[in-house]
Amino acid sequence: MPSVLPAYASYEFMRVTSPSEFVAHLELNRLEKLNAFSRAVWLEFGRVFRQLSDDSDVRVVVLSGAGDRAFTAGLDVTAASSEGPMSGGGSDADPARKAKAWRAYIEEFQVSISEMEKCEKPVICVLHAVSLGLAIDLSCCADIRLAAKNTRFAVKEVDIGLAADIGTLARLPKIVGSTSWVKDVCLSARDFSAQEALQVGFVSQVHDDKEKTVEAALEMAARLAAKSPVAVQGTKELLNYGRENTTAASLRYTAVWNSVALQAGDTSAAMMNLFSKKKPTFEKL
Amino acid sequence: MPSVLPAYASYEFMRVTSPSEFVAHLELNRLEKLNAFSRAVWLEFGRVFRQLSDDSDVRVVVLSGAGDRAFTAGLDVTAASSEGPMSGGGSDADPARKAKAWRAYIEEFQVSISEMEKCEKPVICVLHAVSLGLAIDLSCCADIRLAAKNTRFAVKEVDIGLAADIGTLARLPKIVGSTSWVKDVCLSARDFSAQEALQVGFVSQVHDDKEKTVEAALEMAARLAAKSPVAVQGTKELLNYGRENTTAASLRYTAVWNSVALQAGDTSAAMMNLFSKKKPTFEKL
Amino acid sequence: MPSVLPAYASYEFMRVTSPSEFVAHLELNRLEKLNAFSRAVWLEFGRVFRQLSDDSDVRVVVLSGAGDRAFTAGLDVTAASSEGPMSGGGSDADPARKAKAWRAYIEEFQVSISEMEKCEKPVICVLHAVSLGLAIDLSCCADIRLAAKNTRFAVKEVDIGLAADIGTLARLPKIVGSTSWVKDVCLSARDFSAQEALQVGFVSQVHDDKEKTVEAALEMAARLAAKSPVAVQGTKELLNYGRENTTAASLRYTAVWNSVALQAGDTSAAMMNLFSKKKPTFEKL
Amino acid sequence: MPSVLPAYASYEFMRVTSPSEFVAHLELNRLEKLNAFSRAVWLEFGRVFRQLSDDSDVRVVVLSGAGDRAFTAGLDVTAASSEGPMSGGGSDADPARKAKAWRAYIEEFQVSISEMEKCEKPVICVLHAVSLGLAIDLSCCADIRLAAKNTRFAVKEVDIGLAADIGTLARLPKIVGSTSWVKDVCLSARDFSAQEALQVGFVSQVHDDKEKTVEAALEMAARLAAKSPVAVQGTKELLNYGRENTTAASLRYTAVWNSVALQAGDTSAAMMNLFSKKKPTFEKL
Amino acid sequence: MPSVLPAYASYEFMRVTSPSEFVAHLELNRLEKLNAFSRAVWLEFGRVFRQLSDDSDVRVVVLSGAGDRAFTAGLDVTAASSEGPMSGGGSDADPARKAKAWRAYIEEFQVSISEMEKCEKPVICVLHAVSLGLAIDLSCCADIRLAAKNTRFAVKEVDIGLAADIGTLARLPKIVGSTSWVKDVCLSARDFSAQEALQVGFVSQVHDDKEKTVEAALEMAARLAAKSPVAVQGTKELLNYGRENTTAASLRYTAVWNSVALQAGDTSAAMMNLFSKKKPTFEKL
Amino acid sequence: MPSVLPAYASYEFMRVTSPSEFVAHLELNRLEKLNAFSRAVWLEFGRVFRQLSDDSDVRVVVLSGAGDRAFTAGLDVTAASSEGPMSGGGSDADPARKAKAWRAYIEEFQVSISEMEKCEKPVICVLHAVSLGLAIDLSCCADIRLAAKNTRFAVKEVDIGLAADIGTLARLPKIVGSTSWVKDVCLSARDFSAQEALQVGFVSQVHDDKEKTVEAALEMAARLAAKSPVAVQGTKELLNYGRENTTAASLRYTAVWNSVALQAGDTSAAMMNLFSKKKPTFEKL
Repeated sequence: MPSVLPAYASYEFMRVTSPSEFVAHLELNRLEKLNAFSRAVWLEFGRVFRQLSDDSDVRVVVLSGAGDRAFTAGLDVTAASSEGPMSGGGSDADPARKAKAWRAYIEEFQVSISEMEKCEKPVICVLHAVSLGLAIDLSCCADIRLAAKNTRFAVKEVDIGLAADIGTLARLPKIVGSTSWVKDVCLSARDFSAQEALQVGFVSQVHDDKEKTVEAALEMAARLAAKSPVAVQGTKELLNYGRENTTAASLRYTAVWNSVALQAGDTSAAMMNLFSKKKPTFEKL
Repeated sequence: MPSVLPAYASYEFMRVTSPSEFVAHLELNRLEKLNAFSRAVWLEFGRVFRQLSDDSDVRVVVLSGAGDRAFTAGLDVTAASSEGPMSGGGSDADPARKAKAWRAYIEEFQVSISEMEKCEKPVICVLHAVSLGLAIDLSCCADIRLAAKNTRFAVKEVDIGLAADIGTLARLPKIVGSTSWVKDVCLSARDFSAQEALQVGFVSQVHDDKEKTVEAALEMAARLAAKSPVAVQGTKELLNYGRENTTAASLRYTAVWNSVALQAGDTSAAMMNLFSKKKPTFEKL
Repeated sequence: MPSVLPAYASYEFMRVTSPSEFVAHLELNRLEKLNAFSRAVWLEFGRVFRQLSDDSDVRVVVLSGAGDRAFTAGLDVTAASSEGPMSGGGSDADPARKAKAWRAYIEEFQVSISEMEKCEKPVICVLHAVSLGLAIDLSCCADIRLAAKNTRFAVKEVDIGLAADIGTLARLPKIVGSTSWVKDVCLSARDFSAQEALQVGFVSQVHDDKEKTVEAALEMAARLAAKSPVAVQGTKELLNYGRENTTAASLRYTAVWNSVALQAGDTSAAMMNLFSKKKPTFEKL
Repeated sequence: MPSVLPAYASYEFMRVTSPSEFVAHLELNRLEKLNAFSRAVWLEFGRVFRQLSDDSDVRVVVLSGAGDRAFTAGLDVTAASSEGPMSGGGSDADPARKAKAWRAYIEEFQVSISEMEKCEKPVICVLHAVSLGLAIDLSCCADIRLAAKNTRFAVKEVDIGLAADIGTLARLPKIVGSTSWVKDVCLSARDFSAQEALQVGFVSQVHDDKEKTVEAALEMAARLAAKSPVAVQGTKELLNYGRENTTAASLRYTAVWNSVALQAGDTSAAMMNLFSKKKPTFEKL
Repeated sequence: MPSVLPAYASYEFMRVTSPSEFVAHLELNRLEKLNAFSRAVWLEFGRVFRQLSDDSDVRVVVLSGAGDRAFTAGLDVTAASSEGPMSGGGSDADPARKAKAWRAYIEEFQVSISEMEKCEKPVICVLHAVSLGLAIDLSCCADIRLAAKNTRFAVKEVDIGLAADIGTLARLPKIVGSTSWVKDVCLSARDFSAQEALQVGFVSQVHDDKEKTVEAALEMAARLAAKSPVAVQGTKELLNYGRENTTAASLRYTAVWNSVALQAGDTSAAMMNLFSKKKPTFEKL
Repeated sequence: MPSVLPAYASYEFMRVTSPSEFVAHLELNRLEKLNAFSRAVWLEFGRVFRQLSDDSDVRVVVLSGAGDRAFTAGLDVTAASSEGPMSGGGSDADPARKAKAWRAYIEEFQVSISEMEKCEKPVICVLHAVSLGLAIDLSCCADIRLAAKNTRFAVKEVDIGLAADIGTLARLPKIVGSTSWVKDVCLSARDFSAQEALQVGFVSQVHDDKEKTVEAALEMAARLAAKSPVAVQGTKELLNYGRENTTAASLRYTAVWNSVALQAGDTSAAMMNLFSKKKPTFEKL
């Protein structure tokens, strides 16, 4: 088991190692709670992704959950009922004043999780075992999702009396093609399997168990990490832009973006590599 | 066969029953015309969905077609040629003046069908046998689609010399992932089967025959109806919003929406249920 | 082998024939370079699609690559390094001035390829053998994609050190449902097969070899060409609009569009045909 | 005083006369309440504008308030506190359930007022004396605003503890150039004069008193009513579209719109008129 | 009178001179027709702006009309009635087929005029005397408008039976603050004066006569031409982007744009100039 | 001179006092540098606005510059050339890698300044004397702008060789009606006076000197602070939303927002006040 990267030693719930050059492996690390999220956890989660995004030694991130029992059990319901507006502080305030507190609470939570999507490096998410509620919000922010056979997925929020608000309902309709399926799983809160997730395109690969899935993710990460970071990070940026904007706007943005990206030395380095079959070296980005 | 709900007794072409608590079953009921749509039918269709949307005794709607031969054969071509601008009234008007009549006619039709999408409760659509033209426009407005094995689907409009204008071309590219498939069926007007519809994600389940499909839909409806209506209706609203807006806009809208939804009593009721395995009761919405 | 249409005789790299009434078959025709694109090629490519779009004798276009070895090998890297900003002209200019040259170069290239998408007639694209890099940008502009079993697909750009900028990153997220798959192939530049392309919905059919795929495309084209061009071209326009705009905007645009389209004589001609089973004739458009 | 048009005889609070050919003069007519709006009033308001929009004998609408004391005093606060969610019905419901009632109430109100904006004919609004709160929401839906010198304008809502929700905050930033001014009057709820409204471009003309303002509006209306209704109504539609959409989208929509509008006979009629100085006649639209 | 720039000698209706370094003065030059536009004129108009945009010797463009009697009288109605769809060619086609011809005709016209807006260099438009119809469409594409006292402005289209379709209705609501004024002049087709145009912000300066206005424009142009073209052209691009996009999107686009623009040498050159009061030199762009 | 609020004592360049109940007066306080901005200043600027936004004792903010000589001289050019990417660190990196550093630098700067716009309380900005460059970016984020007669305004960036990138080009076209004026001042970098700013609607009031302008701002602030914070903050939020979104989207958002805001006790408190002329008390928000 590789040791924690010194620059990431201060996190309590985030374990960051580097299994190969330019690859960071981030583990949700709150074993005793099935990696569930209290406020302290999501604040750390946002912080670690900001750091990974800025760290020029990192070119690809793999996210997984520590332990065998869960990627994450989702919201730490016990913590939530004592720390946020749910804790009943200000319970004699009127609904408009309470709503302001709720908005602030939800938005801080959303912003923390969205840091994963904003991370400028590709993020590969490994799902396994219990992957409920927040697990879906989280993994919707990844670029590529892999799952172990035993993953138990569910957009569980309806079953605790609320509409998912940390990103699933905003992102899932954009990253899976079948709206009929998206509405089925979001409205019913039913479990779905890794196989079903693969079939509808929510995940890209299913492997026999967690270990094998992590292995596959790390291999994929190593391959991406060996490529030009200008090309890889530009591709991520432009695909995200393309998902949210019209084709015309995307083409224009792409032209502006590449008008400087193409001034990197990476294209000639990469081409040489293509012809010589020699491993190229790319400058840090 | 359950009897018609008294509040819905006045409809001529819409049969509404309640097979279980909080579930409304709406049948297109114009057997002798294979449930085809004249103007009177679509005006009733819009009206019944407005009523269902406002009816706090209804939490889920199942839509199907009466009889074994058709969900709906689509537009009632005979009626259309005698009642709308097709009837040739004002046939000496110039094209600009005729266009105004056509716009008004098309928009009234669109608005009527769109009431199904605007209905604040989830709508599960059961397709079987003949399901042509307007059948696709209609079912695109549902949240979840189930089909019987014998369903004969076709976006038939091109074969009667026109581009579909009651919603298929606006909605299908947003609810099925493969644009190559969408364009194939819309441009060619070819038939496709329930199996193909399942494969591309247009429908979520295929059952042996109409009866079994309706049964599956009603069971699914009963399960959704037992959940918190605040959670279920919020989820529908936010998924629809997410389909049409950027991720950033959706996250903000979600935060504002949930800032009041979370002040309902449903979350505590639902959580208690989750732990106690006792069926919760939710107030009407 | 049908002979080149006289109106299209002047192209050097574009071979246009008419295998059946109202069908144009356009072949990329630069065999010795595996149909790779130099600037002269893409300028011709844009020009031929503008001509096809305006040619009232053409109702459907089939695009394929000449020869057995490649649909297209993509960018002609040798040519590119001597003709565009890559050629090093102005190499002592500062990065902002170079960026202007790059923007102009990329946009001219984008505009040329986008003419395929803007073509008012349906375009069916046949992919086979080597189909790398630009091959994906190109085929994303088609309406329907068919592939031969031996197609070797790859969004190859990352491997030459750049983010694809001629349309793949802008269009692929809109025409394939699974974002996880889209990001996988775009970030990794890995090969994928015709079978995989079919599975995720990027292509609609796979045939045994190039010959059979072209045959299938020409048959499909002939069927579309026999339909009302007002209906077919309107359907293409409205589906493209629907992909890029909100449902509400699309419904309105559709109503305005059809308010005049429905004043064509095609609907009555088509209906008569439907009932009489006699082949209808539609006026040129 | 012209008599009420028979087709509009059934309204209680809306008085519609026709002072000249093709001109409808609509007066808010609830003198004893300073033309304040209860729910019955706004439902009638929406209905009368739908009727005016469809009435081919009407080409321009002038809206004013009956009596000398007020265009409208705004919301009828007494009525509002007994008929809507303010009436306290369901006061033991939780905030989420109350919010649903509020949403329904606000949206019905918004939809009614927005019918004025959706009316396909130009609407000229005459403001005078008391013009508070809802008076601004209303007049923002007009095409052209004229005011009498004695008009007392105020976006009054903040002073009754709420943010204006019937359209002022959505429309005012789009129809007046100075955002600093818009925020000043909306946040402070202060009065502003006709002169100030003219200066910032909220109104187009100021006249000495109500009578003279109505006269000016009716003259303007008569001039517009003598023009081609195809041209005038198209201009309104395209300007409204232009306000809400990008330039590129507007140009495209304009081309589609005019591709049929130009097939009217009005252009030749109008041109002949331009040269012969003879009053042209245009067919009804 | 400066002589025509050799590179622009081939135009028939466009006279291009260079009164000072980096300034191009473009005159509409069809005196005998009051600079009215036939199809040949607008095709040249588009072409000359593409050339000016690409010409690195040009940093600012001034547009004016030749002669004293008109900036432009607008559409050349005689020509229009013999060359476009108005000419009655295909007059037995059905309305849908005619509409296609109209769309093509309008869009070619729009594209030609829009080249002025797309020109990457600032365009200062001088208006004088007769400035009707198309004169407004044209000048809406300029960056800055100056007018002579005697200018007779009118959005004249309604008076010839049509809605303006070459850009006025798409652009005017975005470049003048008062919608009430915009609708007044567009619906009524009434004349308005230079003074009124100044007051509402449509033009920025009014001068005594045409000669003085051209002089003021050329002086302004010379001042802009002396500045860094990277800064000036970037400012134009970003302001145009800001007008059409949300603030958040604009800020992001600005950051990407300036990330390369700031790598020009212009900032240090300009700063040195600012301190030393010596005229800086900027490289061609 | 009121003393600094203890909660804001730690800022070096931001002086926050409370001249009256619920009003915060924020002064840029770097006298010796004419309140110019180094990186440390803008980071503090962002931080202080986040704190003000969250501080329930603050309902309105007034922003001004300390001293008589300048609101702010804009960017601290000396500091900028030693601390950011301008400092030449990494000067041997290729342009693409440098661009990444520039993007990060610009976005951090933009985010800091945008906190002023995101502040949930109204911000009134007082401009006086030197108000160049960044002064415009900043004041565009305010809700209401007041100026002293001696204000010397300029969008100065073009004169230092760059396009303004901290918000002026994104926001100015949305908050001033005349695009011709906006482009004039942004492209020419010329000075403009308080009087001119008033005329075009950039500022709302002009006063004799700085002292009188601050006084007017504080009085306006006190009036706003006495109103319902639910109403005032909702109005700000909805106006900002209205500026960036379509009317239809704004109306919907408004209905959702007010469905909870109207459940505050403020409306009844405010109404009572309106009738009794007694000063109401509103709960903290």
